[in-house]
Amino acid sequence: MRAFLAIPNVASDAPNIARNAELLAAMMRRRGIETRLLRVEGAPPVVFGELRTPGATKTIALYAHYDGQPVDRSRWTGDPWTPLLRTDLVERGGKEIPWKEAVAAPDPQWRLFARSASDDKAPIMAMLAALDALRASGRTPGFNLKFFFEGEEEAGSPHLQRYLTDHRDLLGADLWLICDGPVHQSGRLQLYFGARGVTGVDLTTYGATRPLHSGHYGNWAPNPAVALTHIIDSMRDENGRILIDGWYDDVRPLTAAEKEALAEVPPVEDQLRDELSLGRTEGDRPLAELITRPALNVRGIRAGNVGAQAANAIPTEATASIDFRLVPDETPRRVEQLVEAHLRKLGYTIVHDTPDAKTLRTNARVVKLAWEAGYPSARAPMDDPEVLAVQRRIEAITGQSLIKMPTLGGSVPLYLFFDLLHSRAVGLPIVNYDNDQHGANENLRLKNLWDGIEEFVGVFAKAP
Amino acid sequence: MRAFLAIPNVASDAPNIARNAELLAAMMRRRGIETRLLRVEGAPPVVFGELRTPGATKTIALYAHYDGQPVDRSRWTGDPWTPLLRTDLVERGGKEIPWKEAVAAPDPQWRLFARSASDDKAPIMAMLAALDALRASGRTPGFNLKFFFEGEEEAGSPHLQRYLTDHRDLLGADLWLICDGPVHQSGRLQLYFGARGVTGVDLTTYGATRPLHSGHYGNWAPNPAVALTHIIDSMRDENGRILIDGWYDDVRPLTAAEKEALAEVPPVEDQLRDELSLGRTEGDRPLAELITRPALNVRGIRAGNVGAQAANAIPTEATASIDFRLVPDETPRRVEQLVEAHLRKLGYTIVHDTPDAKTLRTNARVVKLAWEAGYPSARAPMDDPEVLAVQRRIEAITGQSLIKMPTLGGSVPLYLFFDLLHSRAVGLPIVNYDNDQHGANENLRLKNLWDGIEEFVGVFAKAP
Repeated sequence: MRAFLAIPNVASDAPNIARNAELLAAMMRRRGIETRLLRVEGAPPVVFGELRTPGATKTIALYAHYDGQPVDRSRWTGDPWTPLLRTDLVERGGKEIPWKEAVAAPDPQWRLFARSASDDKAPIMAMLAALDALRASGRTPGFNLKFFFEGEEEAGSPHLQRYLTDHRDLLGADLWLICDGPVHQSGRLQLYFGARGVTGVDLTTYGATRPLHSGHYGNWAPNPAVALTHIIDSMRDENGRILIDGWYDDVRPLTAAEKEALAEVPPVEDQLRDELSLGRTEGDRPLAELITRPALNVRGIRAGNVGAQAANAIPTEATASIDFRLVPDETPRRVEQLVEAHLRKLGYTIVHDTPDAKTLRTNARVVKLAWEAGYPSARAPMDDPEVLAVQRRIEAITGQSLIKMPTLGGSVPLYLFFDLLHSRAVGLPIVNYDNDQHGANENLRLKNLWDGIEEFVGVFAKAP
Repeated sequence: MRAFLAIPNVASDAPNIARNAELLAAMMRRRGIETRLLRVEGAPPVVFGELRTPGATKTIALYAHYDGQPVDRSRWTGDPWTPLLRTDLVERGGKEIPWKEAVAAPDPQWRLFARSASDDKAPIMAMLAALDALRASGRTPGFNLKFFFEGEEEAGSPHLQRYLTDHRDLLGADLWLICDGPVHQSGRLQLYFGARGVTGVDLTTYGATRPLHSGHYGNWAPNPAVALTHIIDSMRDENGRILIDGWYDDVRPLTAAEKEALAEVPPVEDQLRDELSLGRTEGDRPLAELITRPALNVRGIRAGNVGAQAANAIPTEATASIDFRLVPDETPRRVEQLVEAHLRKLGYTIVHDTPDAKTLRTNARVVKLAWEAGYPSARAPMDDPEVLAVQRRIEAITGQSLIKMPTLGGSVPLYLFFDLLHSRAVGLPIVNYDNDQHGANENLRLKNLWDGIEEFVGVFAKAP
């Protein structure tokens, strides 16, 4: 486990990605998993393994990824690929524990620090440890198992669709478990039945072709930053409600089962408000319910300068970067259409390349849009018998009841498993939510690893 | 003149500022002007000169500055302090003219390129050349003349108030002419009777204390960029109208004489829209009238990231930098009060230092404001007999009728001359408006220099 975390694993670092894949394949083979590397030209390999169980009639497939987010070393305390144990988060004064002490009597609150300690090497390690535990207790899995470990999820999974299509025959299963993401903020284990989709756009508005003196031309020459703030405000209110015509027409209403599940989600709002120093929240519903709705997030705005660099000038252009979270049955293409129709209604001429002087002179309002590809959301029914069976087995082993979340707020390409493999797919995350998974000092709480191992024993084992 | 333009003149460059002041003083003394350097500890000296005219009963004082804007050498074609002649603007294909040819038969459309060629060494040179011209034609000035040349205007004139206060007795005059700024965009000579005041503020709004995943927390955790766009839109519409309660209560209505003067200003809007590639303009009135109104300009916005750097995250804070242009009888203090009252009405708690976690947790909305000092506008009556007399003399000499602008859109601290010296003060600029005065390749069109010399002959001479 320390060896696995010690190999740098940024998707673009081909030699180290290869070392990760080889080590992972070796760890799997050592456990009797029939393992091979699936390959697409120029992409990190998928480490794929099968463990057939004599007499088993059902197949469970597990997805995770072995690559990690790029690191900003200057922000880490310690090296991202030198695993360290600490008593707590660094910002809460966590102290380093020598590895020898750790082995003797580890405290469940201690944390393991390394890039991908949580995201996503933790579930991979927990699955392999669960197999060991199952066997150590003299049992065998109750199912045929398939393992699919991707090497470029943090780079946006650019070849996942290709991998699933090319190997469709290999990847059939009665249930896919997507083991990415964190457990609930309450600390309780959870299953998520869906994920929001995502797309994004950069919008750029234009003023004069050179910066103008704000005294000589202010309140005559249009200010592109003001045009942009008006666009943003016309699209979204301060309570998270999207104001674009027709936006909610595509939203599939919550089912009775989803509403019931939401009612069971423990409240975390006060805890999070304290932790994040929030004086208010958007919307009037609990977090778990709000993430079943579409979202429009302003990722960033750039125009002119602020602070000491600010000049008394009217900027020449202003750009906002926006991401949209999609819910069933929204699609990225439909989102583009609705946004573009909205901007046209505001009087904008839409361009997709940088406009020339003539375009700017002859159109009252010009906006440039640069769309991302995006992908849709997916949501499984909450009464799926295969899922309920897994839930019962986990609950029996761990003695904990799982939170059933209708959807993850974030995006994972669940839809590919639905659409390409025609399979059921739900999320079974194991790591702590406060793991700084995309930032510095990514960490895994030991209790989450241990619970995760138990969870996978529950997934693999026959019903008790 | 080439020697004067060849000395670097950024206000913070004390040794070179001293060389500028010494050379200027020498040029003035050579023309019989009784000259001395006024000094304030740590500030560039003011070069002050007096030329008494036997029998004259009136005194005219002239203001200009000999310092220039800092330069970004990478953006200049040629060295900022090696004066060059070209046939036209660089971007219009202007070609360099050897100095020898220039002396033989200069073309009035040629331009002189150097930092401060326009802003503000041009009027200084024109004044001295006008004295020479007057004397060459056998005449003497009709007035006592005072010359006040500042050395830190481009650094915001931080000691001008002190200089005017310390030397109040020395600086009495029947009329002050402020010779900073450009002529009208139509190319015609102009007198301006006022200038807008200015102040500025940086506003910062806050989200969670760490960047949050926009999927897991989007439309629950408040987005500070969205809060900021709503603040901006609540303060100003897309036609330049300020929406803050009471804003226009302080605005002194235009007088009949001002309205009449505005009606005489030649239209430049179409020319400027072509030049700046503007598909629309703010407001529904000519530029000259719009600048008699208050303005709110967004200088810049910074939140999160855009383009390839954009992360799917909710930013922790968002900052906008705004400058306000003030008209009579607005004051910077009153502007602060109105903005703060407006933000309170929107539910904001206002802080002036970075708020701590407790402040953010216990207040629904927090905004940090960082105000600049600012200064008010000033506007002289358009029927001042001293001013009308100067206008008539200039028109008689140049054969051109002057545009009378009620106000400059930009800000110069005219109010100090009104308030501290209790003097009339109006603006008499001479340089071309397309002079890139604060940017790279600052330039002076020769025709503007020649017209300027004629104008100052008109200022100095007895009425014909």
